[in-house]
Amino acid sequence: MNEFDLIARLTKSLPTDASVLAGPGDDCAVLDVGLGDRVLLFKTDAVVEGIHFQSDADPRQVGHKALARALSDIAAMGGTPSHALVTLALPRKFDAAFIESIYDGMSALARQHHVAIVGGETTTNPERILISIALIGFAPKGKVIHRSGAKPGDAIFVTGELGGSLAGRHLDFEPRLAEARWLAEHFALHSMIDLSDGLAGDLRHILHASRVGAELLSTSIPVSRAAKLKAKEGSSAKPPLLAALTDGEDFELLFTVASQAAVPLLDAWKKHFPKLRLTCIGKILREPGLRLREKTGVRELTAHGYAHFAQS
Amino acid sequence: MNEFDLIARLTKSLPTDASVLAGPGDDCAVLDVGLGDRVLLFKTDAVVEGIHFQSDADPRQVGHKALARALSDIAAMGGTPSHALVTLALPRKFDAAFIESIYDGMSALARQHHVAIVGGETTTNPERILISIALIGFAPKGKVIHRSGAKPGDAIFVTGELGGSLAGRHLDFEPRLAEARWLAEHFALHSMIDLSDGLAGDLRHILHASRVGAELLSTSIPVSRAAKLKAKEGSSAKPPLLAALTDGEDFELLFTVASQAAVPLLDAWKKHFPKLRLTCIGKILREPGLRLREKTGVRELTAHGYAHFAQS
Repeated sequence: MNEFDLIARLTKSLPTDASVLAGPGDDCAVLDVGLGDRVLLFKTDAVVEGIHFQSDADPRQVGHKALARALSDIAAMGGTPSHALVTLALPRKFDAAFIESIYDGMSALARQHHVAIVGGETTTNPERILISIALIGFAPKGKVIHRSGAKPGDAIFVTGELGGSLAGRHLDFEPRLAEARWLAEHFALHSMIDLSDGLAGDLRHILHASRVGAELLSTSIPVSRAAKLKAKEGSSAKPPLLAALTDGEDFELLFTVASQAAVPLLDAWKKHFPKLRLTCIGKILREPGLRLREKTGVRELTAHGYAHFAQS
Repeated sequence: MNEFDLIARLTKSLPTDASVLAGPGDDCAVLDVGLGDRVLLFKTDAVVEGIHFQSDADPRQVGHKALARALSDIAAMGGTPSHALVTLALPRKFDAAFIESIYDGMSALARQHHVAIVGGETTTNPERILISIALIGFAPKGKVIHRSGAKPGDAIFVTGELGGSLAGRHLDFEPRLAEARWLAEHFALHSMIDLSDGLAGDLRHILHASRVGAELLSTSIPVSRAAKLKAKEGSSAKPPLLAALTDGEDFELLFTVASQAAVPLLDAWKKHFPKLRLTCIGKILREPGLRLREKTGVRELTAHGYAHFAQS
């Protein structure tokens, strides 16, 4: 049994109630807790030493990444994060200065986004550091962007450039909070997700939740410089396009919008975010499956995203 | 540096704002998020294989304990839990049936307390299972019970019987949610905490937060049958009173109330909760320190609570 099968089994019969507008299967839980025109967003995300960061990583960047990942999930719903709790599981002998630097990195990013760190817990994990962030945030009711709303004909957009994140960007990326909020406020986005598993894998999450398919245009996919450099390293390296499709941890926004909104959206984007690339990479189709249109024809895309344990 | 020193350093300069009514240093964070006459409670708590449960433990009980610990913290503020997220860090080879049973135990307890499990995450922790629960809940504004309100002259109460929890009770205890809510609703409690570190250790948290001292009456302390049985096991066993003072994981409520409320409270308690013992075990004093009044005199209590990584 793989992790996705396990998650499917575990989340099949969880206790729920009418306050739960979205539960397992989206970037965040969406809760109606009596806030009038706002909903509460609720999310946890963990990073583990040796898995999501190496032991010799800059501890400030480790803290930055731990919080940024959770912020990115709030962004993907069009929300605003507000309060975080930090769970720190540590070997019995820990380097206090290293841990303090992790907190410094987290705190700096929290301040930048006006997020209060309101406590947490330290516990023991003998073999390696694990940092789990619990985050709440808010979004205007009716403006939350889910994974499940993609419609046939939608244009598919992605921010930034993809692939090769493990060369460094995964440790210092900026969660796209302002951009996502602006998008949710000004355009009727049909679906959105943040890229953690890789473009192909995360687009599949949207397609699965929305019961649709998609076709991507290979020449449109924005490939990062890091992925291109990496591809030159040797014969065993991934071709840059494959890296852009399947490398994980880009933490860019992937969203869909009705095709008639595509050009106005791109124009407005360039005015508001001139430094961040936004690219239309394909369209949503009625027929299930994910296809890649290349110069030589259209082929089914079977490559999966970066295979790690993913969000439930 | 021990964990308490570390926590003190880490929590010294965290980002905060006016919405944070209580941050690090109480059982839960207390947040004013615009809910009118209610506040939001926010808490995380983790259990780790080999630390908080053994590998051969009943997985349903492991799930029960993981959630019950967090529920107990919401109880200690006089709150009502509402929504939980589950972070499950697993070795790459996991026993799916074991994990499903953990979820069954959690779900059963969640249903009992009308808590929705709204998602979470699975990730990799190669050497052992770690389960972290993030929990939100609510409490009436102005009725939240903090650690910091104990006043000289207060009577000190504890529910249930203490000590010897590791013989089994730590895996199947019932969080005192109904009792705590009833107390908060009907009596002006000055302070409350749930017992996770042991009576002496957790009372010290109240004393420290309230800048007061206390005297306990040794003959009043309710010692559990498990602690008494354990004491008979051999010459190296803890005396039962010491077990009741210092064993961890009782998850009973410890609270203080003005002395004139003590008798009415005890009378009302016996009518509402005839099956759960409530004991007045001592009083709060102006002079700092924790003292134990025994037949032979009063002595300073230097024994600390069960030394594990504790709440920040």
